[in-house]
Amino acid sequence: MPPANGVISLLTDFGTTDAYVGTMKAVILARAPAARLVDLCHEVPPQDVSRAAFLLYTAAPYFPPGTVHLAVVDPGVGTSRRPVALATERAFFVGPDNGLFTYATTRDPVIAVVELRRADHRLADVSYTFHGRDIFAPAAAHLAAGGRLSDLGPPLSDLVRLPPFPLEITGSTIRGEVLHTDRFGNAITSIGPLTWEGDTLILSLYLSAQVGRGAGGKASPLRLTATRVQVRVADQTLRGIHHTYAEAAPGMLLALVGSHGHLEIATNGGNAAQALNLQPGNPIMLAY
Amino acid sequence: MPPANGVISLLTDFGTTDAYVGTMKAVILARAPAARLVDLCHEVPPQDVSRAAFLLYTAAPYFPPGTVHLAVVDPGVGTSRRPVALATERAFFVGPDNGLFTYATTRDPVIAVVELRRADHRLADVSYTFHGRDIFAPAAAHLAAGGRLSDLGPPLSDLVRLPPFPLEITGSTIRGEVLHTDRFGNAITSIGPLTWEGDTLILSLYLSAQVGRGAGGKASPLRLTATRVQVRVADQTLRGIHHTYAEAAPGMLLALVGSHGHLEIATNGGNAAQALNLQPGNPIMLAY
Amino acid sequence: MPPANGVISLLTDFGTTDAYVGTMKAVILARAPAARLVDLCHEVPPQDVSRAAFLLYTAAPYFPPGTVHLAVVDPGVGTSRRPVALATERAFFVGPDNGLFTYATTRDPVIAVVELRRADHRLADVSYTFHGRDIFAPAAAHLAAGGRLSDLGPPLSDLVRLPPFPLEITGSTIRGEVLHTDRFGNAITSIGPLTWEGDTLILSLYLSAQVGRGAGGKASPLRLTATRVQVRVADQTLRGIHHTYAEAAPGMLLALVGSHGHLEIATNGGNAAQALNLQPGNPIMLAY
Repeated sequence: MPPANGVISLLTDFGTTDAYVGTMKAVILARAPAARLVDLCHEVPPQDVSRAAFLLYTAAPYFPPGTVHLAVVDPGVGTSRRPVALATERAFFVGPDNGLFTYATTRDPVIAVVELRRADHRLADVSYTFHGRDIFAPAAAHLAAGGRLSDLGPPLSDLVRLPPFPLEITGSTIRGEVLHTDRFGNAITSIGPLTWEGDTLILSLYLSAQVGRGAGGKASPLRLTATRVQVRVADQTLRGIHHTYAEAAPGMLLALVGSHGHLEIATNGGNAAQALNLQPGNPIMLAY
Repeated sequence: MPPANGVISLLTDFGTTDAYVGTMKAVILARAPAARLVDLCHEVPPQDVSRAAFLLYTAAPYFPPGTVHLAVVDPGVGTSRRPVALATERAFFVGPDNGLFTYATTRDPVIAVVELRRADHRLADVSYTFHGRDIFAPAAAHLAAGGRLSDLGPPLSDLVRLPPFPLEITGSTIRGEVLHTDRFGNAITSIGPLTWEGDTLILSLYLSAQVGRGAGGKASPLRLTATRVQVRVADQTLRGIHHTYAEAAPGMLLALVGSHGHLEIATNGGNAAQALNLQPGNPIMLAY
Repeated sequence: MPPANGVISLLTDFGTTDAYVGTMKAVILARAPAARLVDLCHEVPPQDVSRAAFLLYTAAPYFPPGTVHLAVVDPGVGTSRRPVALATERAFFVGPDNGLFTYATTRDPVIAVVELRRADHRLADVSYTFHGRDIFAPAAAHLAAGGRLSDLGPPLSDLVRLPPFPLEITGSTIRGEVLHTDRFGNAITSIGPLTWEGDTLILSLYLSAQVGRGAGGKASPLRLTATRVQVRVADQTLRGIHHTYAEAAPGMLLALVGSHGHLEIATNGGNAAQALNLQPGNPIMLAY
């Protein structure tokens, strides 16, 4: 486990029209006055655990080692779903046990999990509807202030996990899905991570559903010649995988490797998700 | 008065499409470099003092003692309304004298108030339209850095206060109103604070309008048997007051004690405010 | 160049529905753990460089000397547009070389510019689509931590600049444009900066396009008698320039000097931009 660095990232579906996020921060600062708080996103659609899990996967690797990631998208609040904290070699994660941490802990695997049960690391009155404030914020504060994971409760041997990213390879065809559309209308897909090696793209498969069912989550990466690939999405065929938006004419669609390392569908200077009416879950197919 | 802890909460109706909030923070950091800033909410509807007062009431108790709450929802900027700072046993509050601090200072009463008049605790050029930046931010910075309340201006003996929360008891009926609908569509009502004691609910009355008109703001709390209560709201009758969303079937309405300690109308996994078209000011009635 | 004070302001068009801003902050805190981060605005309309440049112009003067302003509105990401950092006597600015810093550096001129080329002040893998994270955040962190501008890359002798604010004087007529409409519906115009001297308004001309074309950017300020001025905007004639909203009856339009020191069109307690359908670029004329 890494020593805590005092940084806490916050990821919720609380929005910004109420004072819920500010209240969580109040609780943290009351217990860890030196904590430094970074908002990851609070506009996750209500109860959309998958989207939050995707955002955490994209952002967590950029934080310094020893960061505490506090994530509260919690449709099961007040039910028997367990409140948990966990550690990897790089970071701590605190939140409900509903799969939020699945993708962030695929490459950087979980080494310890506890259930948040200790009364001294909860508020005195725990509500039935706001565990972000009453249970998760105090636990995150404890870890950020250098407290031990094991102080927070008894160890757990399992965690709820979301299904792997949809990514299936058959012959010379790769099938995936749109995972997320961002503010600019870029549609980020499950086809990734991709890295450039000259004009060749290396597709790692450790996040793939197919591999998940196979040999211990391992598979040789796939090598693609970027210019030869054909991408099919929403009745469009796009030729080649590009480096950057400007490789298409203004207003034109293209497929490129986005900043998350995943295949993205974008429009140079426009909004691809709107133009093609793309939504999370839409299929994408790649012939190579 | 508590010693300042360096934390400043910010609550405004400035929104996030301009740079007004960032400019206030700039002024604070120029005068109190070690201040730690926490956004409570900036999406208060323009000039909605009541909503801001409600949000501050819900969040302030969770901050560490010695926090400065800077609240700027200020329809009267540039008129004769007074800029003020005040202290309770727990916290400081800075903003326009228009009732913003009413509910946050009901349980934790005001012990000193000053009018913000000292030129050395204002910017050199005070605009007529942005006192958040020119008067309130410097005052908050002064307090957060450990400066004295009395440095900021002459004492005042009165403060503008909003009417108490609507909460009237007749026979075995309690009448209240929707105060606020949150991002999830939960409708938070004026019926509170409520605390659980086994299956019994204790309703404190210190915030009630009725009590406000009576014997010094005091009244014995009311004891309710949660399962026997009937709630009437928007032509619906709901039976019982619940602990948590999951006590209703998915998609079903219920009444519960929300995280603010007030009676809430919610839908398990849905949006009650939308389903019933609930707005602040709508009546709610409780038979017990 | 001022010594860095550890404060970094952030201004982007990234919005708040993704984790892009949080990821930039992660990169900063990994390299400058003591940096204090202030959000200026992330709701700049996608790729609207002018609006971002205007917001930075209004906010930057309020930050303490030695602040680093990190601004990423970057339609040219992945093209040959240069990534830059620059210094004035008061502050540092980091972002793409597309004119973002034009208005913030008119009164407080640029004294040094470098192109961001050093590999040790970039992330190891620089993407083609997110230089905010990979190039600009590490550079801002370097400066905020006290690093030298010259460490970041070779000096540049020129910078892209936006056109000056539209502001032309002919006889006793001043022509300008709406620059920005804010959350409250105030329409902020290019006619400014204006300062009060009793009932007289002093209009400085250093930002004017006309002056820009003339004698080294200098011109004597203009003196206006506020009560005699007539303002023409969207077929309305408004008499006089006022100090504050409350000088008009509730619901009535007025012209006033806003908090940015520019002429603003506002409605007392209402939304002028909506009432007159005002947009950036709409003409405004002032007869004095």
